[in-house]
Amino acid sequence: MRWSQTFLPTMKETPADAEIPSHQLMLRAGLIRQLMAGAYTYLPLGLRALKKAEAIVREEMDAAGAIELLMPALQPIDLFERTGRKSAFGNVLINFNIRRGDRTVHLALGPTHEEVITDLIAKHVSSYRQLPLCLYQIQTKFRNEERPRFGVLRTSEFLMKDAYSFHTSLESLNETYQKMYRAYCRIFARCGLDYLPVEAESGPIGGDASHEFMIPAANGEDQIVFCKKTGYAANLERAETGRQTPAIAAPADAQPLQKVSTPNVGSIDAVCKFLKCSPQQMVKTLIYVADGKPVGVLLRGDHEANEGKIRRVLEAKDLQLADPSTIFQVTGAPVGFAGPVGLKCEFIADHDVPLVANAVTGANEEDMHLTGVNVVRDYALKTTYDLRNAAAGDPSPRGEGTLELVHGIEVGHVFKLGTKYSVSLDAVYDDEKEFRQPMIMGCYGIGVNRIIAGLAETRFDDNGLIWPLAVAPYSVLLCPLGVTDTETMELTERLYAELQANGVDVLLDDRDQRPGFKFKDADLIGIPLRVVIGGKGLKEGLIEVKWRSEAEAKKLPVDGIGPAILKLLADRRAEEAARVPG
Amino acid sequence: MRWSQTFLPTMKETPADAEIPSHQLMLRAGLIRQLMAGAYTYLPLGLRALKKAEAIVREEMDAAGAIELLMPALQPIDLFERTGRKSAFGNVLINFNIRRGDRTVHLALGPTHEEVITDLIAKHVSSYRQLPLCLYQIQTKFRNEERPRFGVLRTSEFLMKDAYSFHTSLESLNETYQKMYRAYCRIFARCGLDYLPVEAESGPIGGDASHEFMIPAANGEDQIVFCKKTGYAANLERAETGRQTPAIAAPADAQPLQKVSTPNVGSIDAVCKFLKCSPQQMVKTLIYVADGKPVGVLLRGDHEANEGKIRRVLEAKDLQLADPSTIFQVTGAPVGFAGPVGLKCEFIADHDVPLVANAVTGANEEDMHLTGVNVVRDYALKTTYDLRNAAAGDPSPRGEGTLELVHGIEVGHVFKLGTKYSVSLDAVYDDEKEFRQPMIMGCYGIGVNRIIAGLAETRFDDNGLIWPLAVAPYSVLLCPLGVTDTETMELTERLYAELQANGVDVLLDDRDQRPGFKFKDADLIGIPLRVVIGGKGLKEGLIEVKWRSEAEAKKLPVDGIGPAILKLLADRRAEEAARVPG
Repeated sequence: MRWSQTFLPTMKETPADAEIPSHQLMLRAGLIRQLMAGAYTYLPLGLRALKKAEAIVREEMDAAGAIELLMPALQPIDLFERTGRKSAFGNVLINFNIRRGDRTVHLALGPTHEEVITDLIAKHVSSYRQLPLCLYQIQTKFRNEERPRFGVLRTSEFLMKDAYSFHTSLESLNETYQKMYRAYCRIFARCGLDYLPVEAESGPIGGDASHEFMIPAANGEDQIVFCKKTGYAANLERAETGRQTPAIAAPADAQPLQKVSTPNVGSIDAVCKFLKCSPQQMVKTLIYVADGKPVGVLLRGDHEANEGKIRRVLEAKDLQLADPSTIFQVTGAPVGFAGPVGLKCEFIADHDVPLVANAVTGANEEDMHLTGVNVVRDYALKTTYDLRNAAAGDPSPRGEGTLELVHGIEVGHVFKLGTKYSVSLDAVYDDEKEFRQPMIMGCYGIGVNRIIAGLAETRFDDNGLIWPLAVAPYSVLLCPLGVTDTETMELTERLYAELQANGVDVLLDDRDQRPGFKFKDADLIGIPLRVVIGGKGLKEGLIEVKWRSEAEAKKLPVDGIGPAILKLLADRRAEEAARVPG
Repeated sequence: MRWSQTFLPTMKETPADAEIPSHQLMLRAGLIRQLMAGAYTYLPLGLRALKKAEAIVREEMDAAGAIELLMPALQPIDLFERTGRKSAFGNVLINFNIRRGDRTVHLALGPTHEEVITDLIAKHVSSYRQLPLCLYQIQTKFRNEERPRFGVLRTSEFLMKDAYSFHTSLESLNETYQKMYRAYCRIFARCGLDYLPVEAESGPIGGDASHEFMIPAANGEDQIVFCKKTGYAANLERAETGRQTPAIAAPADAQPLQKVSTPNVGSIDAVCKFLKCSPQQMVKTLIYVADGKPVGVLLRGDHEANEGKIRRVLEAKDLQLADPSTIFQVTGAPVGFAGPVGLKCEFIADHDVPLVANAVTGANEEDMHLTGVNVVRDYALKTTYDLRNAAAGDPSPRGEGTLELVHGIEVGHVFKLGTKYSVSLDAVYDDEKEFRQPMIMGCYGIGVNRIIAGLAETRFDDNGLIWPLAVAPYSVLLCPLGVTDTETMELTERLYAELQANGVDVLLDDRDQRPGFKFKDADLIGIPLRVVIGGKGLKEGLIEVKWRSEAEAKKLPVDGIGPAILKLLADRRAEEAARVPG
């Protein structure tokens, strides 16, 4: 493709409304343009990268035995009502009425396609002989993002690969899940992403029923807990702290228990400021209502409650923070003054709580706190639990190493669904004994746009993007200096034709511009291999080739330049392929 | 692909709600399934055909110099308000409000993308040096079809290739228009469609500013006028009748003018029945209001008025049928009794009108008609015009041959838009003299799903579909007889691997079913080349190959069967390619 004949509007300035590198660079390099909040046009260069990522996703899904189909974006709302996802999605589900003659039809735009695929399979599969099945599509999804932002990282319309599998047994589901997991590793590695598979919420089947694939990135919206030493990785909701129940004993240097007046001082921060202590010296007491019964939850002052963990420890179906009247009932005080000493309900404590010696807690009395609070002497604990979000510095749950907290961009998710959708949409089969059984399902999603945004967010320098060869819009940028010079242009055209004839994607910068101007754009759009033809080099019979990812250029003889470039590309492709897991 | 591992639900019975062959066959062959009225899932087999058609469209658009990009389906409604298309589309434009925090955002789902692309180009192109540009996308469109029907021929969600070009001169527009026209001919020919480019409405630029590409098909919703002899083809709105102004003279056998009582008999049919005459013996008089002024339009009783033509003859901006009070004013009678004799307003007549001797017309008097009405004697005409739709039997406007009326499926449309969108969306450029000019635009659409439906509607027999090689979901169907026979299956697997290694799309029917059952499915899904392995033939060292499009099978020796099949496919591909215009 000749630069002058495509539509590649680069920008010198960083757009004011773009906050993060990927958004800034994708705009500046002419990959995308915003149509409105949450909706972007992919310009020719951006679409080429997107299509290459899409092709890799398709190849790996096919290789893993998934079968491609294509479902509509428009969906009848009643399917979402049957699965309960209309209310679960709430305002995120774009849905509306249309008029057809006298009738009104209520439609939704698919945020994913669990309902549609399950309905399809329910109608066409009835025997265990027809299972397992794994179907996928690469299709446009719609979600009403309250705050669309970060360029194409969070939009209301995006390209998703969504796969769904149907099984007669957990073993069969696990087998497909593993195939998808491996395919995902290959996809992200082929695309040149540094990805991290992390444990995510366990879902209805329990165990390791869900993994997210994350790109560690400072601007990622997800938080990941990661241990370099053991490789343990999980999202913040799911991560274990690695703590165990400690010896529960009063400390040797126990100070006397004292009640202090803390008028109108209820929050952790306010108490710390008022009593000149740190949050680590405090034990906070949260009052929950679990299945109708009030329960206290004790955490160190600087820790965050993890309601998933609390719910599991309490084996509670319903868990909510208590309202002020319940809090008054069990503490005798308004919100902000609860503590373990004298609390009129059962309570459970996080592993770290008994380790806080001479703690500050609420006094269960309005405007009063206690200092010098110690376990055993002042309140009793039989055991402790993991009730909080992991934090940086926690030990790894795998026994050695320390947890770090990093941000990440979620690019994929594999999930064991179980029978939620098959039960609500009647996707049943007859087993060997002719008993009717609901199908066991898995689902597997990849945000294709996020592959591109994830690359732009992690592979760049001060001058612009740095594409891996596998996803680069073009592999080679031919950059003739002096487009009016006959010798330069003859050689350029010959090389352009030769590379294209060998299946290489080439962009030819045929603009009549100064070298500095062209090189700036070249660095900005980040095509892997830049080939400069002309000037002094050419007079010496040399052509300059430079990898965008490397600082130094090489000079190669004009004679045999075509095969030399093909060799460079083949070697680079082999290097990239070597990083892909088998 | 192995049949047992894909999802290919064929149906023996014709679905009751499918009216036309393409819909019936696409359902029966497992290509599509309806999710709801106007929305279909493409099953794996259907998607493969769709993707092949899409790839051909993309190749030809690229070859014609169009640049691919991808615009969002979600669009801000204000763009449609600025171009007036919100009201022009009316209920067909799917649009709705979504809530984002406190704000309400009014969105539309793109029925096409003239607004979005013009807005994009307006923001990024400002000089004649950046033009011409031709951009395209292959993207999902949404329209609220009041009566979705005929399977995927008329749906609310469909895949469209839409291209838009931007120019500084009509010459440049014409050049791109011709390129697109040629690309369209190549696309439809490569896809194996018998297509007909027909002249369509002329639009704002006049002349031959618009062509539709039609697939002649009995169930097509469009009507085309076609002359076999001269090749003239136009859609019904556009077609000229080929008639000229005749000699305007009273007939030799003029009968006396008589007034007859026709109580409550106003319509053509009712008058014919009452007076025992044929519509060809009548002259009907339609009263229009053209730019505020009443005008009579005379047509032969069996002809249909063409308001586009009438408007052009009258040079009227606004043309409407008159209301009853205007009709009373110029005829002195209620609706149904107008006639040329004594009409109190100007009138114009179609070429055929003066040829009706002794005509029956309204008498401009309630419940009365005239018989024996003749031009010159009873009413005056200076000249005549082409004011009606062409009809079968009319002479071709090219001077020889006769027009036929055929039905067609519209699969493509090329259109010279002029400056409608560039003016309303401010897409202007500075010309060589630094004057600001609106860009001149063209647009070019192809319904990708209709390529598939058009093939299914025109290439089938009693047993099922007959795919051309270029768009077939698979090129070869391997059909082993006896999947438990080791020799048969070893040979089958070897051939399967060999063909795939040579880049052939192969479907292997590995189901343990009787030959008759498999052959029925084979004919139904219509894969071009069926290869039967096993049975008596194999014992004799022979393999049966049969083109779906031919009645007779051939037997080929097992030895060298792979290369023999590759040769058959290459020859067929060459045959198909030979039908593609250069």
